[in-house]
Amino acid sequence: MEKITLDQHISRQFNTDLEHLKTQTLAMGGLVEQQLQDAMRALETGDSELALAVLETEKQIDAMERDIDEACTTVIARRQPAATDLRMILAVSRSVRDLERVGDEAQRIAKMAIGLSEEGGSPRGYVEARHIANGVRELLRGCLDAFTRFDAQAARETMTKDKQIDLDYRSAVRELITYMMEDPRSISRVMNVLWTLRALERIGDHAKNICEHIVFLVEGKDIRHVHPED
Amino acid sequence: MEKITLDQHISRQFNTDLEHLKTQTLAMGGLVEQQLQDAMRALETGDSELALAVLETEKQIDAMERDIDEACTTVIARRQPAATDLRMILAVSRSVRDLERVGDEAQRIAKMAIGLSEEGGSPRGYVEARHIANGVRELLRGCLDAFTRFDAQAARETMTKDKQIDLDYRSAVRELITYMMEDPRSISRVMNVLWTLRALERIGDHAKNICEHIVFLVEGKDIRHVHPED
Repeated sequence: MEKITLDQHISRQFNTDLEHLKTQTLAMGGLVEQQLQDAMRALETGDSELALAVLETEKQIDAMERDIDEACTTVIARRQPAATDLRMILAVSRSVRDLERVGDEAQRIAKMAIGLSEEGGSPRGYVEARHIANGVRELLRGCLDAFTRFDAQAARETMTKDKQIDLDYRSAVRELITYMMEDPRSISRVMNVLWTLRALERIGDHAKNICEHIVFLVEGKDIRHVHPED
Repeated sequence: MEKITLDQHISRQFNTDLEHLKTQTLAMGGLVEQQLQDAMRALETGDSELALAVLETEKQIDAMERDIDEACTTVIARRQPAATDLRMILAVSRSVRDLERVGDEAQRIAKMAIGLSEEGGSPRGYVEARHIANGVRELLRGCLDAFTRFDAQAARETMTKDKQIDLDYRSAVRELITYMMEDPRSISRVMNVLWTLRALERIGDHAKNICEHIVFLVEGKDIRHVHPED
């Protein structure tokens, strides 16, 4: 009986650890979403103060990644999880790396916003950027929702949206290149929008990666049959 | 006595596992270096066949990442490592993700090479691209060398080279934008070189990340005092 009690106790503690990792990851995801939204608003409105706030908050995201990653390592060392639990921790560790990269890209967009507010707005590309940003934000939201419920099916469905984003991205780039050829004096300003589009496309890639981590977490077969007892 | 023998046996097996992970990672690193070299050569010589070979090999790199990452998970589940061993496995898992991204960027460069061989070469930017590529390859080599010896000092020194790459990148971008303004008909071709420069800059970032993983592996304080026995 004592052993069972001990097991339950350890397991309860362990569950708390896992829940905590999940909550922290979702909090980080929420902050990253906000960063993307603010960076895009700064770009569209030429609000360089808001853009600077995005750059400032990036440090907080870096710290969150480090904290969560350290917590993952600690939980592995302390609890020595196997199978699903280990996969969950690894999926968290991988996802926060992708979230941190999303934060990086939001920071790049904020820098473009500052560039545009200094050089004057771009004559083109805002409509396309907003359209792609909306798609990317939907993708990111979908992947965080799937993460909340550890829902592999939802993750698979969400992933497919990245294809449309890539298509929209490529078409927008073509259009802006054509425009620059017609109005070469705008090149430097249009380039800021072009880099923004590329950053958005990368965010889409990272969101897709997170979806893959969720599928690995839920369905991963690679370690299912590996257990110290075996 | 029996226990000691068992421990030694387990430890020997475990060392083999760790050595194997390291060897596999270095093999992947070597292949990724080759990809970068081939992609740059394809770009400079307009050799679209070589560029296609780079795209083909990318699948192999993806498979290597998956294999090594699975091996990491298996070793954690089987051996339940703590402290340095765990950090080493996590550093491997993180490094192969960065190496895979370097492979992705090499693939992007190969695509630009194909674009240039179809549209005709760019009138500018090759000298700058080659210069930056040389710096990036040196950085990548340095980080793989530091990984081979698990040398944190060498990793720290190598990392600093990324700053010069960023400076060279920014100066080359400015120059190419100025050139495009003077010769707008070249924009589409010059853009292929611009995307290449950005891909190279990203590779520098990933190499820097790998250096950070090595420092974490060797010096990481976050889990040094965490052990199941505590």
